[in-house]
Amino acid sequence: METTVRNKQVILKHYTKGFPEESDLMIVTSPDTMELKVKPGSSAIMVKNLFLSCDPYMGTFMREPDSGSSDSEVAVETLSLLDAFIPGKPIAGVGVSEVIDSDDPSFAKGDFVWGIVDWEEYSTVSSFGRFKIDMSINVPLSYYTGILSVTGLTAYAGFFEICSPKKGETVFVSAAAGAVGQLVGQFAKLMGCYVVGSAGSKQKVDLLLNKFGFDDAFNYKEEPDLNAALKRCLPQGIDIYFENVGGKMLDSVLMNMNVHGRIAVCGMISQYHLETQEGVKNLQVVVYKRIKMQGFLAFDFVDRFSKYLEFVLPCLNERKLVYVEDIVEGLENGPAALVGLFHGQNVGKQVIKIA
Amino acid sequence: METTVRNKQVILKHYTKGFPEESDLMIVTSPDTMELKVKPGSSAIMVKNLFLSCDPYMGTFMREPDSGSSDSEVAVETLSLLDAFIPGKPIAGVGVSEVIDSDDPSFAKGDFVWGIVDWEEYSTVSSFGRFKIDMSINVPLSYYTGILSVTGLTAYAGFFEICSPKKGETVFVSAAAGAVGQLVGQFAKLMGCYVVGSAGSKQKVDLLLNKFGFDDAFNYKEEPDLNAALKRCLPQGIDIYFENVGGKMLDSVLMNMNVHGRIAVCGMISQYHLETQEGVKNLQVVVYKRIKMQGFLAFDFVDRFSKYLEFVLPCLNERKLVYVEDIVEGLENGPAALVGLFHGQNVGKQVIKIA
Repeated sequence: METTVRNKQVILKHYTKGFPEESDLMIVTSPDTMELKVKPGSSAIMVKNLFLSCDPYMGTFMREPDSGSSDSEVAVETLSLLDAFIPGKPIAGVGVSEVIDSDDPSFAKGDFVWGIVDWEEYSTVSSFGRFKIDMSINVPLSYYTGILSVTGLTAYAGFFEICSPKKGETVFVSAAAGAVGQLVGQFAKLMGCYVVGSAGSKQKVDLLLNKFGFDDAFNYKEEPDLNAALKRCLPQGIDIYFENVGGKMLDSVLMNMNVHGRIAVCGMISQYHLETQEGVKNLQVVVYKRIKMQGFLAFDFVDRFSKYLEFVLPCLNERKLVYVEDIVEGLENGPAALVGLFHGQNVGKQVIKIA
Repeated sequence: METTVRNKQVILKHYTKGFPEESDLMIVTSPDTMELKVKPGSSAIMVKNLFLSCDPYMGTFMREPDSGSSDSEVAVETLSLLDAFIPGKPIAGVGVSEVIDSDDPSFAKGDFVWGIVDWEEYSTVSSFGRFKIDMSINVPLSYYTGILSVTGLTAYAGFFEICSPKKGETVFVSAAAGAVGQLVGQFAKLMGCYVVGSAGSKQKVDLLLNKFGFDDAFNYKEEPDLNAALKRCLPQGIDIYFENVGGKMLDSVLMNMNVHGRIAVCGMISQYHLETQEGVKNLQVVVYKRIKMQGFLAFDFVDRFSKYLEFVLPCLNERKLVYVEDIVEGLENGPAALVGLFHGQNVGKQVIKIA
């Protein structure tokens, strides 16, 4: 391997307004060469990044933190591992990397790790929040951007910890063919629940029904009346809603929730980039139906991570769980893939493979 | 006492639309006389009603259950002790009564009881959901329409069970001078919290500050910007919100919630009678701030009632707690008092004393 390189990065050009666009990002190759070595005494780790995760929260990190827009401001306050992106600097997210040099005794050259990395070919990182990958487990490395890292823990913690599911309950998942949704639906089936999902294309609905084993599913873009679609698919009402989208869907779900229903609020992707958020009008039913609605982040459940792996790895081995990724090759195709998330262009977990 | 009477009742004339009005109710004196005796073998109890409670949920019970309006429909489904009101029949609610005849061995003539009763002078009731009042406790009988029954349990369960308060946390209470709000604020002070309340008049704000011991308070009608009012009174943010009003207030509170904040959704009185509900736009922060928002009804916490009394009676005895009632005399003044609730005319717990 060469020992000096020109690093390629995905840089935020400027803070975004509204929906992120490809033109908000740029690919830059450093004019200077860098050595693929860490400084002795620095305790740093040099990694070559292999896979990058595209996640909806990244769009909110592209906005100006103090722009008065509620969500980006708050996101910065509350996520300790990751700060809002800075114009002129690379964006960042979960990535899988190979250690190519290390001054940290707990990581050695040749180790594979996952954690937050900048979107670039080579990164100098610290051990904080960096997880070593057990290469004896026979799964694709890309899984550590998703099912075996934050995405998986998100689905697990949101469904099991927030929703306390019981066998026979009804579960509705929005954005169900996405990274988190596909897992929640399958976890719910493993629990013996009746599971319905919504997604935004026929292809995704087919996946839900034929690959992920959902009991029923609908394409929300083809339903003139979401309330009617939910009543048709879940005439017995909804005990658990795994919320990924917000807005009109949440309003319709509220009308269909059962008494003592639980809503895990994982995300509200339909609302993140609107100029004016859709108002949710049916919150009154939260009182009458005694609904618990709870937001969460996987970061709050890091202590459950090993328990999650003990649960999910056997499921993968025994093929009780399938996992669909949408892998795009090349860092230069990263911006389009990330931006596509906000328009539902991904089918399954969106991953960038750095060629 | 006479043994036959003409019963006076408050009758729902017709289902309501929008805000309930006095003209939706009528006072009727029965043309027929009734005997103040229960039928032997009926297991029934005949009571003379002394005090009636006015509660916000009663307004939603005046609407047609299957009118498609989300809340009245649901209310009927979910409250087991009380059904939606029926035109031509008396409305009903929590009341304090004296037993004047009984065919139920667990209740004797001369006992005082509280439970759901029709709005009328005399009622034949069952023992289901009927609580005997311990007359050795030295409190006004009217307290059993509020602080010593459903209102009190609502404040207690919502604050302690849903919000899990900790000493030093910040608490915001809307409709804070109302029946439930005044208790929540005082419970929070007893817990060592910093407590701020909102109310709709200078008189009520004065009560919060000078009688109930709130740390700060504001008149929401005089605040052009609720967000700014909350930031002024709670610069350190809100850990716990006790929600009584909904709509714009909830939207502003969401902007000021702290990470891992809790919202007990007791009611949304500002929204119950609007033609179109105000949309709540800031729900996204539920994710970033990992907020728990939970609706509840006191009926779900009936098993905590004796524990609540053990807590609240010493507080009353030792004058650590004050309780303000707004008592109107005469069943014929009941409709105005009930309707007044929806316009914030009551100061403290609205009670009807049947003369």
